Amino acid sequence: MNSVDELCINTLRFLAIDAVEKAHSGHPGAPMGAAPMAYVLWDRFLKHNPSDPEWPDRDRFILSAGHASMLLYALLHLTGHDMPLEQIKQFRQWGSTTPGHPEYLLASGIEATTGPLGQGFANGVGMAIAERLLAGHYNRPGFEIINHHTYSIVSDGDMEEGVSSEAASMAGTLRLGKLIYLYDCNGISIEGDTSITFTEDVGQRFQAYGWHVVGAIDGMDTEAVDAAIRAAQEETERPSLIICRTIIGYGSPNKAGKGEVHGEPLGADEVRLTRERLGWPYEPFFIPPEALAHFRQAVERGRRRQKEWEEKLKEYQEAHPDLARRLEEDLSGRLPEDWDADLADLFQGQDKPIATREASGRVMNAIGKRVHSFTGGAADLAPSTKTLLKDRGDVSLENRCGHNLHFGVREHAMGAIANGMALHGGIIPYTATFLIFYDYMRPPVRLAALTGLRVIFIFTHDSVGLGEDGPTHQPIEHLPGLRAVPNLVTLRPADATETVEAWKLALERREGPTALLLTRQSLPILDRSRPESGLAPASGVRRGGYLLWEAESSPEIILIATGSEVHIALQAARMLEASSVGARVVSLPSWELFEAQPAQYRASVLPPSLRRRISIEAASPLGWERYIGENGVAIGLTRFGASAPGNVVYEKLGLTAQRVFDEALRLLGMSGAS
Amino acid sequence: MNSVDELCINTLRFLAIDAVEKAHSGHPGAPMGAAPMAYVLWDRFLKHNPSDPEWPDRDRFILSAGHASMLLYALLHLTGHDMPLEQIKQFRQWGSTTPGHPEYLLASGIEATTGPLGQGFANGVGMAIAERLLAGHYNRPGFEIINHHTYSIVSDGDMEEGVSSEAASMAGTLRLGKLIYLYDCNGISIEGDTSITFTEDVGQRFQAYGWHVVGAIDGMDTEAVDAAIRAAQEETERPSLIICRTIIGYGSPNKAGKGEVHGEPLGADEVRLTRERLGWPYEPFFIPPEALAHFRQAVERGRRRQKEWEEKLKEYQEAHPDLARRLEEDLSGRLPEDWDADLADLFQGQDKPIATREASGRVMNAIGKRVHSFTGGAADLAPSTKTLLKDRGDVSLENRCGHNLHFGVREHAMGAIANGMALHGGIIPYTATFLIFYDYMRPPVRLAALTGLRVIFIFTHDSVGLGEDGPTHQPIEHLPGLRAVPNLVTLRPADATETVEAWKLALERREGPTALLLTRQSLPILDRSRPESGLAPASGVRRGGYLLWEAESSPEIILIATGSEVHIALQAARMLEASSVGARVVSLPSWELFEAQPAQYRASVLPPSLRRRISIEAASPLGWERYIGENGVAIGLTRFGASAPGNVVYEKLGLTAQRVFDEALRLLGMSGAS
Repeated sequence: MNSVDELCINTLRFLAIDAVEKAHSGHPGAPMGAAPMAYVLWDRFLKHNPSDPEWPDRDRFILSAGHASMLLYALLHLTGHDMPLEQIKQFRQWGSTTPGHPEYLLASGIEATTGPLGQGFANGVGMAIAERLLAGHYNRPGFEIINHHTYSIVSDGDMEEGVSSEAASMAGTLRLGKLIYLYDCNGISIEGDTSITFTEDVGQRFQAYGWHVVGAIDGMDTEAVDAAIRAAQEETERPSLIICRTIIGYGSPNKAGKGEVHGEPLGADEVRLTRERLGWPYEPFFIPPEALAHFRQAVERGRRRQKEWEEKLKEYQEAHPDLARRLEEDLSGRLPEDWDADLADLFQGQDKPIATREASGRVMNAIGKRVHSFTGGAADLAPSTKTLLKDRGDVSLENRCGHNLHFGVREHAMGAIANGMALHGGIIPYTATFLIFYDYMRPPVRLAALTGLRVIFIFTHDSVGLGEDGPTHQPIEHLPGLRAVPNLVTLRPADATETVEAWKLALERREGPTALLLTRQSLPILDRSRPESGLAPASGVRRGGYLLWEAESSPEIILIATGSEVHIALQAARMLEASSVGARVVSLPSWELFEAQPAQYRASVLPPSLRRRISIEAASPLGWERYIGENGVAIGLTRFGASAPGNVVYEKLGLTAQRVFDEALRLLGMSGAS
Repeated sequence: MNSVDELCINTLRFLAIDAVEKAHSGHPGAPMGAAPMAYVLWDRFLKHNPSDPEWPDRDRFILSAGHASMLLYALLHLTGHDMPLEQIKQFRQWGSTTPGHPEYLLASGIEATTGPLGQGFANGVGMAIAERLLAGHYNRPGFEIINHHTYSIVSDGDMEEGVSSEAASMAGTLRLGKLIYLYDCNGISIEGDTSITFTEDVGQRFQAYGWHVVGAIDGMDTEAVDAAIRAAQEETERPSLIICRTIIGYGSPNKAGKGEVHGEPLGADEVRLTRERLGWPYEPFFIPPEALAHFRQAVERGRRRQKEWEEKLKEYQEAHPDLARRLEEDLSGRLPEDWDADLADLFQGQDKPIATREASGRVMNAIGKRVHSFTGGAADLAPSTKTLLKDRGDVSLENRCGHNLHFGVREHAMGAIANGMALHGGIIPYTATFLIFYDYMRPPVRLAALTGLRVIFIFTHDSVGLGEDGPTHQPIEHLPGLRAVPNLVTLRPADATETVEAWKLALERREGPTALLLTRQSLPILDRSRPESGLAPASGVRRGGYLLWEAESSPEIILIATGSEVHIALQAARMLEASSVGARVVSLPSWELFEAQPAQYRASVLPPSLRRRISIEAASPLGWERYIGENGVAIGLTRFGASAPGNVVYEKLGLTAQRVFDEALRLLGMSGAS
């Protein structure tokens, strides 16, 4: 190793050591072992422009092992990204751009929020798919406008998580040749040597997935890493895994190779010994000018490369003006003019009943025709979730231009890959599965919310109404679960017309993900066009909740429902009307949107004076007291479901208009009918 | 194939076809293709006694591909388990023992609730671990009291799920030689041919995990299956995967090998054609007497084998009376007398502050000394979750007698493996990770609740109080998420003394799982022994919630909290007392247990007359209206956390006594202090 390389690598190491020491917490071990590979990658290969972290054709780099965050922050500072040294000194402190784990957009050059293991690995697969698709859509002979690599440093822990197995299998199937992962194999995890629980042959496993496996190499030998990355770049038909053997906490005389160096500061004494061992006479946070000068070449290099690309893009704009315009639109994330023009007349009140999953499928196809970036798929349930975009092509090994992805039975990777596509840009991704399987993909849904990604998560078969598949497939706790996630908008439309509005909101929402909950079973279309129906327009969905219907006599009670149960509430309200009791029916498809409305609007929908209230929702009633108050009745499910036809399950579990009617009379102090 | 074999196999096929047809829903394809392998396994290998499905040393069989449930129900009926034909005719109907997916204990011989893919696969690994451990603990030369296989039929979908990858890797590490899986590789999933998304070499992947891989064989050739199972039994050092190529919907002239036969009835016409093709002239649900007689040999065979085992057990009881007694105790699931004798004096009020995770670790070690069956581990976080049982041995390839499992960074498999151990019996399993990673293991926690398993899920680092690791690691929505799961008891103790009580409840609860939520940060021990402290005893935890402290003046306001926030509530109450405002502090560690109390008790803790209420909990406030009412104040978190020292995060996010104090004064119509 020449002396500049060594100086640069030790600069990375000591910035990590010093920052962790100052913070009294953090993970010094991984940065110390992985610094050489990170240095080689960033110094010799990574195509990025620190002056413009948004350059669309930059290489993507994800630190999947997010606990090694200081390695990334050090790289960002040294290569000239907007990451002042002062922030590194504020590592893990309130308000800094250097939290314990990297957070997307918090600082220039952070491509993904990582930390929960395996997520970054799968995000990278999503980014590589996005790159492949955009290249397929837009590149033309002589114009490789989209042509970049996706790199990641992944750890033993990433490799143990199932989500990375799922994503790796899919990457192998699609032969994502521009995906290159450096596996920091240090053989140490928190409980000790990984041999206690992780004796598999990772290289053989990845070969089985169809990956190109390089190594194991000495991951701290810069020339070995250099050669391995070159070999990986030359392999264009398969994703590459470079197995890098490293020593966690390298340089620490007493702690290198030990579990304790993973997640604890070295301590003053050991820092001193490590300085001696690595020949580092400097004060904390000192950066040798020679190292800085070397790293900062990235600035000029990046500017030059982006400039070359921009010149090429100009030629492309002249040669292919229509494509160039659409590329720009896709990358901007803007929706085209009139994107929703086909939605207004999609459903008529006179149409026969239709499941909201079916209605959603029709909406999606109308959107897919006009929104080019709209791309996604299901976890092997497309025929059931109704999410196939007809005539839009399947993404496959052969077809690099399609819009329909086949995720396989891999819900967890599906979510994380969708996040990766959203992070990459140029794609508005959606995923689909049954609501019960939200449980398999909670981590990526949460990260989409935390990161503020426009990802649309479609969950069909949204209640016990799915019927015969039984309690293993019937969601109960999932609706409150979704509602408790910050920055996630959950929408459970009541019919086809509300489904149209829900989809519009999902597409328009750029600041975070949206979950759409849809029925398996058919539901009548609320025929709002007939004035005598007394039904308010579906545009009320935009406010989260709205007065859907009200008896002509002054209302004495409010019935509040979401999704399929709105029809039960309506039926009960009409039964009450026949008994001369005035009721108001409120459709509340999205709590989040409703709570964002002005108090005055909310009070107009749920007047404080109207204290008698019943909610009905085929889910855990947790949280409904917010709307029904102390004396209200929440009709829901506090038990698991059952296997039987959906209407039988509803009947047996008390999700019926008669029950609502009886409870209403009871609340009003009138004797019930039953 | 001889004619009896063929007759038996077709009997399985047509029971499935007919039941699905009658139910108008279900999955005929997998039973039709997998009937031969299932027949060979059950007829020639499976050690079970249909007259006593509880026989401890029976082989375990799990239908991981739970959608093929009719195959299992047919096997149970035909081999003489308590599964009347009438129930098969009631397939997927309300109240039947034949739901869409198999449910544990609903019928004799159902060893696990399956359907969500990958779970059964991992349950089997747990069962094989339990078998290995019990054999290690109890077998002695000449006495192989515990010595059985664990079999499963797994599907393509199971293989795609990450949880099975995690479990397979762990099974390989532990070399579970008595685990034998038949992989029903029919190459078809719902979206079509699996080649669209699943091109990996599964055999090579399992070899990489350290498995013994047999095949691919013709999975519909009985003699090939027979030979493969024999080979798998002969391999005692590695788990075996038998790759069985099959044709989904075999026998259906127009639908065999196609996706539609997976999850839809064949339809009357196709059933007729299938009868013709397979030479099946019988009426629906007819069972040829020759087939029944052949299958029913299982009854006598099973009785004989169990009798032989029981005779051996008698000899063992004489030769090793102490071991035999403990074995009986372990298998019964009973806790030994005085199992909690060491817990009473574990913590004194005068002790210095201690994190509840740390207190929990001490409680666990006290339990582990007396409860032999108490066995578990963490997902590579034992030093952080404090869940290591000292001097109780590590479970490893070499040590077949330990109590500490190393699950690796595999939360999902950890949960499902723990479920498998509980299903097996003889083990009271616990798992441990950070609360944020509950998201990685929601499906098995749910299944433990649905199935009614005594599994103890330990979740430490239970709030933003964990500090510097930041929002990727700080739970927000997880507490309401846990509370929404039916039959799950969640306990969030406020200090070491409540932690003792929480553990007692968790061990004593046999009808379902318990989640224990514990802090990373230190908390004072509530010194209940000093009368002047005014603190109620920790035994109140048993009622879910209790009056912890009350001002001497008559209370005007109730402060309700859980876990670490109880201390904030207490501090605020004392500040209020100093301002001459009487407050009552309620500790509410478990909503589920509190709600199970008589109304009178609940009203004594939260008197309806005391309407001014504030809750404080470092989590999403979803659901707190239940206790604070319409005019109460829920102090919680509706945003994600932040990376900073835990006390700073609490301060910045408003989780402080001052905030509670101010809100209290505001509620009381007095001007706040700030």
